[in-house]
Amino acid sequence: SGLQIFADRTEEFRKVNILMKVPALKDGSFTLAESIAILLYLARKFKTPDHWYPSDLQKRARVDEYLSWQHVNIRGKGSKLFLTKVLLPLLTGQPLPPEKLESVTEELNIVLNQFEEKFLQDKPFIAGSEVSLADLVALVELMQPVGAGYDLFEERPKLAEWRRQVEEAVGKQLFQEAHEGILNAKSLTADKIAPELLEHFKHQLLKQAS
Amino acid sequence: SGLQIFADRTEEFRKVNILMKVPALKDGSFTLAESIAILLYLARKFKTPDHWYPSDLQKRARVDEYLSWQHVNIRGKGSKLFLTKVLLPLLTGQPLPPEKLESVTEELNIVLNQFEEKFLQDKPFIAGSEVSLADLVALVELMQPVGAGYDLFEERPKLAEWRRQVEEAVGKQLFQEAHEGILNAKSLTADKIAPELLEHFKHQLLKQAS
Repeated sequence: SGLQIFADRTEEFRKVNILMKVPALKDGSFTLAESIAILLYLARKFKTPDHWYPSDLQKRARVDEYLSWQHVNIRGKGSKLFLTKVLLPLLTGQPLPPEKLESVTEELNIVLNQFEEKFLQDKPFIAGSEVSLADLVALVELMQPVGAGYDLFEERPKLAEWRRQVEEAVGKQLFQEAHEGILNAKSLTADKIAPELLEHFKHQLLKQAS
Repeated sequence: SGLQIFADRTEEFRKVNILMKVPALKDGSFTLAESIAILLYLARKFKTPDHWYPSDLQKRARVDEYLSWQHVNIRGKGSKLFLTKVLLPLLTGQPLPPEKLESVTEELNIVLNQFEEKFLQDKPFIAGSEVSLADLVALVELMQPVGAGYDLFEERPKLAEWRRQVEEAVGKQLFQEAHEGILNAKSLTADKIAPELLEHFKHQLLKQAS
């Protein structure tokens, strides 16, 4: 098939997505950005098992509710912690001020509490008894702070149990392979990052700080 | 039917949505937060005309792509301008520093350019020749800066033409009624806002400024 997924910002990729955001999809002449839109497209195109995006009206609404909520919450705060803890010291060449890390960690913990209380409750998965795209998106985002060295699962047994079940549903080996990069992020050095990407992150971090 | 939509933070509402975010939906014993999840639920439940959320794989992906992108872009920057321009002076009792307004306006204009170039291009609507939930969500968010007194359509003829067509598709009178509140926002005074809501906005604005 002519389907390609881009995960790096190459020149060919620039033609696919003028926003220069990863990931991006190219299916023949059709191009698509935004990871969630891509997941939904793939689920529909390849008619994946129903539980990933349930046809049941209420279960599907639970998945949509999470996918909408997570942008400025789990994703926003998780990637902010990653950028602050891993990239800020690389960009400035200075150790991170402890109070800065503390405030970003606190913001993440507020949304983690909401995630447990509102979305997970006492169910094994967000949509109920079966794993869905919502769990997949949630866990992938939570691996960013883990990759930055903040193991948020340590003091959250309910979340740790949910993680174990999502990993099992995805397949432990596949999950491990998919997260190799982010789990080695702690050993990143500035010379391993493309200069235009460094500039991009610098800009993002300065904006957050202003 | 037992279906209710909550648009205000009343006590009854608190029981529906522990996150205390508006809007929220209650359909019998089923409750749902997040405006986009609610729109998708209503479209499915009431089998609205296909163009709102097209069954065509690629058109639907365009709608999903916009609905995912807009959270931290059109919505994020549009509501930041609203909060800064209308609520910050109310909360501080001080006029807004011009450089603050300028930087928030610039952020919004960057995402407006992306919206025109990437999502609208030369099509009448985001998904192509027909109006969809993506256009509806986009226009509703853009009415926030308009309500704050920044008429972003004035210098953007393509965007103004798109707005005219979306309004027409929705129905001009319905559109007007739905936006009466936000279009009167300029005349808001602090005593007309519930104290806990004022606190909430104060917290949000201070976070953005830190």
